[in-house]
Amino acid sequence: MQEIIKPFPSSEKIYVKGKIHGIEVGMRRVHLTDTVRIKNGIREIEKNPPVVVYDTSGPFTDPKITIDLKKGIPRLREKWIVARGDVEQLPEVSSEYGHLRSEDQSLKHLRFEHIRLPYRATPGREISQRYYAGQGVITPEMEYVAIRENLNNEALGISSHITPEFVREEIAAGRAVIPANINHPEAEPMIIGEKFSVKLNTNIGNSAISSGIEEEVEKAVWSCRWGGDTLMDLSTGNHIHETREWIIRNCPVPVGTVPIYQALEKVNGNIEDLTWDIYKDTLIEQAEQGVDYFTIHAGLLKAHVSLAMKRLTGIVSRGGSIMAKWMQIHDGENFLFTRFEEICDILKRYDVAVSLGDGLRPGSIYDANDAAQFAELDVLGDLTEKAWSHHVQVIIEGPGHVPMHKIRENVDRQQKSCHGAPFYTLGPLTTDIAPGYDHITSAIGAAQIAWAGTSMICYVTPKEHLGLPDKEDVRNGIIAYKIAAHAADLAKGFPGAEVRDNALSKARFEFRWKDQFNLSLDPERALEYYKVGSKSDEEYCTMCGPDFCAMRLSQSVKCEELK
Amino acid sequence: MQEIIKPFPSSEKIYVKGKIHGIEVGMRRVHLTDTVRIKNGIREIEKNPPVVVYDTSGPFTDPKITIDLKKGIPRLREKWIVARGDVEQLPEVSSEYGHLRSEDQSLKHLRFEHIRLPYRATPGREISQRYYAGQGVITPEMEYVAIRENLNNEALGISSHITPEFVREEIAAGRAVIPANINHPEAEPMIIGEKFSVKLNTNIGNSAISSGIEEEVEKAVWSCRWGGDTLMDLSTGNHIHETREWIIRNCPVPVGTVPIYQALEKVNGNIEDLTWDIYKDTLIEQAEQGVDYFTIHAGLLKAHVSLAMKRLTGIVSRGGSIMAKWMQIHDGENFLFTRFEEICDILKRYDVAVSLGDGLRPGSIYDANDAAQFAELDVLGDLTEKAWSHHVQVIIEGPGHVPMHKIRENVDRQQKSCHGAPFYTLGPLTTDIAPGYDHITSAIGAAQIAWAGTSMICYVTPKEHLGLPDKEDVRNGIIAYKIAAHAADLAKGFPGAEVRDNALSKARFEFRWKDQFNLSLDPERALEYYKVGSKSDEEYCTMCGPDFCAMRLSQSVKCEELK
Repeated sequence: MQEIIKPFPSSEKIYVKGKIHGIEVGMRRVHLTDTVRIKNGIREIEKNPPVVVYDTSGPFTDPKITIDLKKGIPRLREKWIVARGDVEQLPEVSSEYGHLRSEDQSLKHLRFEHIRLPYRATPGREISQRYYAGQGVITPEMEYVAIRENLNNEALGISSHITPEFVREEIAAGRAVIPANINHPEAEPMIIGEKFSVKLNTNIGNSAISSGIEEEVEKAVWSCRWGGDTLMDLSTGNHIHETREWIIRNCPVPVGTVPIYQALEKVNGNIEDLTWDIYKDTLIEQAEQGVDYFTIHAGLLKAHVSLAMKRLTGIVSRGGSIMAKWMQIHDGENFLFTRFEEICDILKRYDVAVSLGDGLRPGSIYDANDAAQFAELDVLGDLTEKAWSHHVQVIIEGPGHVPMHKIRENVDRQQKSCHGAPFYTLGPLTTDIAPGYDHITSAIGAAQIAWAGTSMICYVTPKEHLGLPDKEDVRNGIIAYKIAAHAADLAKGFPGAEVRDNALSKARFEFRWKDQFNLSLDPERALEYYKVGSKSDEEYCTMCGPDFCAMRLSQSVKCEELK
Repeated sequence: MQEIIKPFPSSEKIYVKGKIHGIEVGMRRVHLTDTVRIKNGIREIEKNPPVVVYDTSGPFTDPKITIDLKKGIPRLREKWIVARGDVEQLPEVSSEYGHLRSEDQSLKHLRFEHIRLPYRATPGREISQRYYAGQGVITPEMEYVAIRENLNNEALGISSHITPEFVREEIAAGRAVIPANINHPEAEPMIIGEKFSVKLNTNIGNSAISSGIEEEVEKAVWSCRWGGDTLMDLSTGNHIHETREWIIRNCPVPVGTVPIYQALEKVNGNIEDLTWDIYKDTLIEQAEQGVDYFTIHAGLLKAHVSLAMKRLTGIVSRGGSIMAKWMQIHDGENFLFTRFEEICDILKRYDVAVSLGDGLRPGSIYDANDAAQFAELDVLGDLTEKAWSHHVQVIIEGPGHVPMHKIRENVDRQQKSCHGAPFYTLGPLTTDIAPGYDHITSAIGAAQIAWAGTSMICYVTPKEHLGLPDKEDVRNGIIAYKIAAHAADLAKGFPGAEVRDNALSKARFEFRWKDQFNLSLDPERALEYYKVGSKSDEEYCTMCGPDFCAMRLSQSVKCEELK
């Protein structure tokens, strides 16, 4: 546990205050050492200003906050939610399954101890961030993300165009979302939209065979530590209701799920037994626990299945293949599509965002950008408008496997078909031939698709296609995707992104090794590799040795020039 | 040793015969198992054709060839070279340093035992591949690479436009090179040019502190095993003359060096003592050992140094910083520039290609595409024409650190300034903030720059900026770059590239796990990760577990459809 909550080196947790609402936005400030130069025999000292970095780790890296996983982390947003006066606390959970679980004495030892009663919109009231934005209201959540997207303004000497009002406009237009279920007040607000910094999602979750609750909670905290902006809990094993409660109560970032997975568990994996009632009850169960967004494969229609069967790799989305099989067995239309208005009616009461799943995302280079994929995408566009009419926030999921020359077309089609709703893509993998290294095949694609307009990228770990990721895989996947996201921020000219690169490169050039490492995405790894070859803070590393260090030589040329 | 020479699983070494010359081109053929389907209760078997992949491992993966590092590998090209009748074998090495080393009895235990006398062009004769191409001659080397670039033509049902004549035209035009020193007949010919598959270079070499001869030779063979197309020996420690001999005699791919490193060693690291004579002797010494291309930082002029001093990270090229310091000390122009015609006069006698070094490549995002870089690039263009007038083959080295939105400009400038000579880039790194993961920051850039027109990408390992790579780092760096190169081949629509992706994805979809792994870039790693979670050849992996496997479900939908 200690390993996953220790503060980062030379880093201080700071809180920036809001001007509209009484909010405090957590960030990480990295302190740097001074530059020391000898010029004409005189010692000169230059102060290096600290660098502020976006921080997804929540209270876990604030030494002033005592962490107790059994109690959960502070409920940051609860007072904002209650203050709006449009929600009611229910006397009990409304889902049948939620009832069953809470009454089951045999689960007592597994259950989170401090479960609160859920909130829900007061009948007749609209409570989504999209609704408020449309009404011209700037919520604390909107101000929070506006502040959060502004880093190092002083260093830049500019004030960014990202203001609370700008955030409100983007959300009202549907070009951005703040996933913020009223039952997950522990989450620090974050924004997903093309005009904001690129975000990354991580997937965790046990499958039938594997890990326990503690391990999953640790993975969630670990994911936030390394930079995951949102977290999908894709558990499919036993006790997923209980596991989810533990995760949400300790998760400072929005949590997403694919509810059809749990619905299928409830019918023991028999697809033919899946019904709308079971699915609906699952939506309510999870919404009242606090899931912030649901992946719903409502765009995969009966007519699309035969298109997918012509493919090299058919349907590779789990949710998509479940619905395809269901449609085949029942010879009927996808109930997620036919019941979509009812689904929105549930989601809007808790401000759960919908992530429209791409059941027909290509699973191979061969299938990329094919008729099946684009046919589904057009349906997702129609569903987007339907969800918006209910004030439900929408993001659109995307591929998958796409070669580089088809990435731009993919984004352009999505933007056009889905009316500018944020795109949220898995990778894409730019080749199929590197199992064991798919964090890299896909980071290459993710950087490009993010630059081309994708708002959030879903990470892929080295174990993709091969097995469940362990903690090291999660870390490697996240860092690969932080790189892709940051490379895209640089390419898009996102304000403030380059400050960190410049500070790190200056430290590198001046042999301030520790500053270099402390500014890096993974200070521990950098230090570990450096230590393999070096014994001290010498002005070179083993890569070139002392006589051949270009930067040392270059420094000496510069000093002579300045004399 | 066994680990680095064992054949790849289910792979057969094949040799494709030439039609013009009596040559045999080595390739790797991966054999696949059958697909078995039950359709309407009847068992159907589908044969899966083998897939041929480009093979850089040379004789090391041919079980018919006995490997003895002490004797070196077979001298494939020697008879082609001698048959042309335009070279002479010298009675002794011509460099002064070569003499000294061969006479030094204390080195006997380190020395390669079977050193041959060097070849050199007969006075008055031109022998470079560029010269022959210009004369309309298709050499065995040209036919060799034409065959080598054609993979899986049968599977494609097309014959590729890459013919021996096409190769000749590209070389004559300067748009492609075959690095092929007449003193390195062990190397299998390979081509570097925009219209051919993207190649990758690896760097190995000890620095002052580190590894011995055996370790370096093993790293060289290891690099070829995983897919390095060329190899730069950047050793800077002791015994680099002897180490180089061992490497070249056992290296089936072209070898490059940066001769200024060794020249500097010869003056004990004292830059002021560097002279043209020492450098010239080093060129001859290395050319007669068989180095196939020299990186020469001849484009960095005195006038450029002040431009570089305005940078955030100055000069980060080792060769560049050495020459900058030399110019400062001597207050004179770069002797690599002033002596460039004399350099070409040496290179042409052995058909050593010149890789014009970018001493001013940017070392940070901040410095990318700046005035210093482009000023040097213009000089490299002039030097290209000068080298071509001596029939010397030319490639141009490129950055470095470049954010994604500046990559295209970088390639376009290079192509224009350097008259279409092949571009050979280090990465580029698309952000500075991930030391410890720079194989990924740079694979993202390498894939894009290769797609945009770079012919060869120079790998970066996870230890970049931190220390010398070990064997695992070399492997990780190469695979990351094989991914980038292959992703670019796919994006460029290179003939045959997709055959491997499609065969692998078909195997994946059909749960032919071993075929999937055998077709992958690193079969061992894929199998290792798979085994962590799985006990047998089940039709699922631990990622999703049995009930949630999309591909299994998708298969079942397909079977029903077909009934």
